[in-house]
Amino acid sequence: MYYGKVDENLIKELKNICGSKYVITDKDQMLGYRTDETIEAEKMLRVPFPDAVVKPRFVEEISEVLKLSNKKRIPVTPRGGGTGLSGGVIPVYGGIVLSMENMNKIIEIDKENLMVVLEAGVALGDLYKAVEREGFFFPPHPGDEGAQIGGAIATNAGGARTVKYGTMRSFVKGIEVVLPTGEVLNLGGKLLKNNTGYALMHLIIGSEGTLGVITKATLKLLPSSAAPMILVVPYSNRHDAIKTVLEILRGGVIPLGIEYMEREAMERSEEYLGRKWPTEKGEGCLMVMITGKDEDEIFSRSECIMRICEANKALDIFMAEQKRDQENVMEIRSKMYEALKGDMMALFDITVPPGRMGKFMKKVEEVSEKYGVSMSTYGHAGDGNVHVHLMKTDVKKYEKIKEELYEEGSRMGGVISGEHGIGLLRIGDLHISRDRKEIELMKKIKKVFDPNGILNPGKIFPA
Amino acid sequence: MYYGKVDENLIKELKNICGSKYVITDKDQMLGYRTDETIEAEKMLRVPFPDAVVKPRFVEEISEVLKLSNKKRIPVTPRGGGTGLSGGVIPVYGGIVLSMENMNKIIEIDKENLMVVLEAGVALGDLYKAVEREGFFFPPHPGDEGAQIGGAIATNAGGARTVKYGTMRSFVKGIEVVLPTGEVLNLGGKLLKNNTGYALMHLIIGSEGTLGVITKATLKLLPSSAAPMILVVPYSNRHDAIKTVLEILRGGVIPLGIEYMEREAMERSEEYLGRKWPTEKGEGCLMVMITGKDEDEIFSRSECIMRICEANKALDIFMAEQKRDQENVMEIRSKMYEALKGDMMALFDITVPPGRMGKFMKKVEEVSEKYGVSMSTYGHAGDGNVHVHLMKTDVKKYEKIKEELYEEGSRMGGVISGEHGIGLLRIGDLHISRDRKEIELMKKIKKVFDPNGILNPGKIFPA
Repeated sequence: MYYGKVDENLIKELKNICGSKYVITDKDQMLGYRTDETIEAEKMLRVPFPDAVVKPRFVEEISEVLKLSNKKRIPVTPRGGGTGLSGGVIPVYGGIVLSMENMNKIIEIDKENLMVVLEAGVALGDLYKAVEREGFFFPPHPGDEGAQIGGAIATNAGGARTVKYGTMRSFVKGIEVVLPTGEVLNLGGKLLKNNTGYALMHLIIGSEGTLGVITKATLKLLPSSAAPMILVVPYSNRHDAIKTVLEILRGGVIPLGIEYMEREAMERSEEYLGRKWPTEKGEGCLMVMITGKDEDEIFSRSECIMRICEANKALDIFMAEQKRDQENVMEIRSKMYEALKGDMMALFDITVPPGRMGKFMKKVEEVSEKYGVSMSTYGHAGDGNVHVHLMKTDVKKYEKIKEELYEEGSRMGGVISGEHGIGLLRIGDLHISRDRKEIELMKKIKKVFDPNGILNPGKIFPA
Repeated sequence: MYYGKVDENLIKELKNICGSKYVITDKDQMLGYRTDETIEAEKMLRVPFPDAVVKPRFVEEISEVLKLSNKKRIPVTPRGGGTGLSGGVIPVYGGIVLSMENMNKIIEIDKENLMVVLEAGVALGDLYKAVEREGFFFPPHPGDEGAQIGGAIATNAGGARTVKYGTMRSFVKGIEVVLPTGEVLNLGGKLLKNNTGYALMHLIIGSEGTLGVITKATLKLLPSSAAPMILVVPYSNRHDAIKTVLEILRGGVIPLGIEYMEREAMERSEEYLGRKWPTEKGEGCLMVMITGKDEDEIFSRSECIMRICEANKALDIFMAEQKRDQENVMEIRSKMYEALKGDMMALFDITVPPGRMGKFMKKVEEVSEKYGVSMSTYGHAGDGNVHVHLMKTDVKKYEKIKEELYEEGSRMGGVISGEHGIGLLRIGDLHISRDRKEIELMKKIKKVFDPNGILNPGKIFPA
């Protein structure tokens, strides 16, 4: 596989397609288009400059850019909000970065069908606000509201609310996607059931911008309900907390989310924000979010979950009913990553069967002691997706720790990524979670969609 | 593409692989392995005999059968419970029918992870019973409990409970699948989140046995809850009933299911069963199923939905609270198909955006009058998936009616199949719901998985 050069002629052609204003080649202006939020990115990955950043406004322009790039064999890396945590938008081979930022229109909130139709560049935060105003609720909530819909679909984003509602995949009903060869496909639609041939839409969901550029989406909405209840439940040790998670999941009330977090991460975030977590008790805390159709339902469901917590050695239960209290705990939870980030070396996204979480976290503890490195742990306990945050250490130790955790997770039936995806960061380790034949099939499927291997080529594709 | 012959040598080899007892070539014994429940099958499709029926007991045998068939280019048609409604298991080119009936073990009900691991030949009815005994609930419920898990996954089966819980796709967490070339893949696992590379599992879900033979599955379970409430709500006309469906969907309480049925179908089923529907009022009825964590919750949710029905011209509301009453209405609903079947010509599975149902059903009425044919209508109103039952007429009229309904459904953003799938019955019309490029991609993907086109070859593949 060889790639063509982005020369002056090509830049001219790109400008003809998108308009001069929307094609950038100035290095300073391209600085923000080189990588995503991956903390490992600058340290361990090669993060080159693209040759040009293109910011189209219409699907027809994207189709033309891709046709041209395909003809000239120019690598094209689609880019959403750049909030990813896997180096999935790094233009490894240079070429064109295709930023979706100008395709940010919410086209329609369809009240009759409970669907929203929107362009791929809409930020999640804007989507939430727009549908709330119309009395609707969009459940998937990956941490960063600056993420864009297209990226969230391309990475099948998860977040804290998947316990009850699942990942993006559960809410995507239709997509418009431009193939690397320029054809525009409209897959699915405003349909709750659709069994007409291979699920190409589901193949593209989670394909991380390697099979096509998502330009538009039709998403399912729910009617908005009463504000959820948030319970904060401290435990004296991890074992009790994790055991409670499993009991809650079996208990008949499925919460919106169950987050687990440990003392160190909480304290770091408290300090970072100058806020106070509602309890000083315990080494670990659960944060349980509970929804229902109205306050009565939420209250009775919360009681049910509180009983389970009490029966499982909770040290206390703090009910964040008031908006102010809820915002406080949500803010502390959501800023943990930022509070730790400066001292962090790596963020693992290993996911195991929920029942194995306790055992996996014990392994984390062992590894942490063995290598003498702090490994702060918190995350989506209700999904078996507990993020391990490795604090600063040397690269050799990182590699060893990664190997040990990946192996242990794998042995337990887990995978190297539950929600962040593969990107450039994990492509070298994909073989741990997917076997040779699977990777062979994936490469062949890539070739079907992208015969010249121009779209978001990582280290494995188009090798 | 050419196919090899099933000769005596091949039969001998098949017997060596599976044991003589498990290879059938006697025509009388193969009678039940030629087609499924598709009423159009014998009338409009070519339904040949296979050359042999093979009933393996182990995945290794399936792998060997497929390796052999791939080498000799023998068509292989995988077969589950044979309850499909699209002619998806008809061995068009003869060859081998691979029946999964002997792979019917429930391997594990994992109480910690809320998952069940089972072989593909387990009947849905057996799955429901087994998990209920352990305190769990498996939501997807396509009409026929004789359907097998493998087939239900291969067709992404739906049914009445998808309103709240979605189709099979939402509950499949892992599959073991044998490729046409004999390799065994294990995709997914006991995981609630998994973002490691292309979603091959989701590609295989709904691929109707053309990409691989599903041999095992890991399915998500829910804790069982209180028995649902069933409301039967008669309306003087279709318009009011369908309007109510949309209001319910927007109302904040998502029911387990919302079925719509018309007088004729109800009466036919009453007569067929010698049972009595709870009300004689109305031309159309809604049947609304409501779940919740306990009786209080169910009652309060039911009240909420009853208020919506009352505000939307319900003639009456019948609450089927008692088990006996519930069984009565469920039985009448579930036997409608059988009651009509003898006089039926075709069963349409067109699905439209929920908001278009009323308009689509008006079109059905017009077409029915235009051609002077009875077209009984009932089905999954909460999904926009209302089955139209065309009663006996000649094939020419059928073709014209089909064309008109497919075109109208398509214009409304609908598809030719919401849940029954494509099979042999709809393959000639697939182009109505999927464009040329999509079909080209599907063919190429088929080729990636099945280079010799041996697995469940229909009329389009491997053309």
